[in-house]
Amino acid sequence: MNQTKLAASALLAFCVACFEKLGLGAEDARLVADNLIFANLRGVDSHGVIRMKIYADRLRAGGFKSNARPQIVAEQQSSALIDGQHGMGQVAAMAAMKLAIDKAEASGLAIVGVKNSNHFGASAYYAIRAIEHGMIGLAATNAGPSMAPTGGREGRLGNNAVAVAVPAGKYPPVVLDMATGAVAWGKIFLAQQEKRKIPETWALDKNGVPTDDPNAAAHQGLIQPFGGYKGYGLSLLIDIITGVLSGGGFSKGIQGLYTNIENPAQVAQTCGALRIDAFMPVAEFSQRMEQMVDMMHSCPKAPGVERIFVPVRSNISSNKNAAPKEFRSMMSCTKNW
Amino acid sequence: MNQTKLAASALLAFCVACFEKLGLGAEDARLVADNLIFANLRGVDSHGVIRMKIYADRLRAGGFKSNARPQIVAEQQSSALIDGQHGMGQVAAMAAMKLAIDKAEASGLAIVGVKNSNHFGASAYYAIRAIEHGMIGLAATNAGPSMAPTGGREGRLGNNAVAVAVPAGKYPPVVLDMATGAVAWGKIFLAQQEKRKIPETWALDKNGVPTDDPNAAAHQGLIQPFGGYKGYGLSLLIDIITGVLSGGGFSKGIQGLYTNIENPAQVAQTCGALRIDAFMPVAEFSQRMEQMVDMMHSCPKAPGVERIFVPVRSNISSNKNAAPKEFRSMMSCTKNW
Repeated sequence: MNQTKLAASALLAFCVACFEKLGLGAEDARLVADNLIFANLRGVDSHGVIRMKIYADRLRAGGFKSNARPQIVAEQQSSALIDGQHGMGQVAAMAAMKLAIDKAEASGLAIVGVKNSNHFGASAYYAIRAIEHGMIGLAATNAGPSMAPTGGREGRLGNNAVAVAVPAGKYPPVVLDMATGAVAWGKIFLAQQEKRKIPETWALDKNGVPTDDPNAAAHQGLIQPFGGYKGYGLSLLIDIITGVLSGGGFSKGIQGLYTNIENPAQVAQTCGALRIDAFMPVAEFSQRMEQMVDMMHSCPKAPGVERIFVPVRSNISSNKNAAPKEFRSMMSCTKNW
Repeated sequence: MNQTKLAASALLAFCVACFEKLGLGAEDARLVADNLIFANLRGVDSHGVIRMKIYADRLRAGGFKSNARPQIVAEQQSSALIDGQHGMGQVAAMAAMKLAIDKAEASGLAIVGVKNSNHFGASAYYAIRAIEHGMIGLAATNAGPSMAPTGGREGRLGNNAVAVAVPAGKYPPVVLDMATGAVAWGKIFLAQQEKRKIPETWALDKNGVPTDDPNAAAHQGLIQPFGGYKGYGLSLLIDIITGVLSGGGFSKGIQGLYTNIENPAQVAQTCGALRIDAFMPVAEFSQRMEQMVDMMHSCPKAPGVERIFVPVRSNISSNKNAAPKEFRSMMSCTKNW
């Protein structure tokens, strides 16, 4: 495969120009482009510029409304609801995250739901906004149905994802950003190519039976929730908090990013922020987080393990191979393509 | 094994009398006893009256302070911090849950942390309090270190647990109550007795290597987080929100329930409540939740599956065999004994 190496800044400028051409205002275009490049720089290419084409297709077809402005439709001291008006998920979610931070500033804690939104890229992008405000951030999203409840054989829940970002003093912020699926489709496609079996916990065949055959998985099969029924429970819970509570789409009411591109996908999100100094001074919290990170890193290791990782926000693209697969997977947040 | 069948009310009265004898006030004695019986009635015997003996031992030895009163030590509009004063975990956590509900009433959403607490039984017991107020409830706890971070071979994280309770209209509330461990120790002990192998995802041997031998697991081994590194991430996150943020114990700073029973265990908890009508009328939400539950139940089934379950609050003791193992496990919330 031919490869062309580009500076991130040049790629960003290109993406911004594309989105402006597709009708987005300058600020929105920069936000969406930055969100995609953020994922590439983080080593999560599945959420990076690979999504440009479908975003462009949806903007042209009408599934994404280029000129939508998020509207606040309900508001309390510590909560609010935003209608994304079927615009870019990034624009609506960033408005929600900012509002959550403002509200948490006053009350200690806030959550803002978003309905009529769209695919919003990497969840971590929003959650980390809270960190510079001395807050813990949260961002969650639902997605088109791609997993079955335990015992089922039809997609009723998305590979719903959640990210939580926590400042950690001298260490990079602890950022857990994970989807509720056992594995990304990309790994199954790879096993197909390499004619390898897959673990029985990854996928179901078209009848809903766990399979170690990647071909059976790829042929009308489904991804399994991670960790079995507990992953199902978490995926359901994320759909309730994002979709049911916001008045947006949930379960089969959401469309996948790549289907019916002329129609709104009815994705819903939730952003939240919690002020650390409502509990203790940020400096004290930071010290405690450093101790926590040290406690993980210093754990005696199993044979063959070089180091123990804590999920963090870091730019790993410059030395991608230094991060183990597990670490990179931990940062992926919806189904890979 | 000889069995004696008791009415729940008689067992409750017995437990209340025991706790009063051990120095608890009448109201506290009833609360703790009710929490234990609640777990038994729910079919989660690991959190029921089986804990009476260790609770009594700890009350006598000083690890539980019988006369402690929870103190509010920090407060904002939507958050608060309670010092449990090393009393019964149930007493501190119930105070926190009530305060969270009161604060959410005013602001839409609230979280209350608890430090210097103790083992608090089943998490669901607190989370479900929110339901009658038209709220979604949350309760989380950390615990003594029994799991290693991914790649480690020493306990650095507890089998930390979280419960979320959501009203669901005509259906029983959806209550997800789960620990972050792959399995309860009890299941490993059972496999030992029955000389069965265990799945490699359940436990580590004493060197930190996944094992299918229940004897190797039981001999200084550890439980694995559920779903691998994602379960590790969730367990870490629960410890941060409960332990680090509250100023309580975290990681190795927490003692197991059965060790050093004369000393405070430094357990920490977090309770939260979210007012549904901050987003939409409760009646509308209830209808949407009914649709969500229907969506799960109506999913086409895999071969051999009789029905698809949604995690709920229900009293299943009268027909325990009707609930599948997975369903019962979903409701267990810390390491079984």
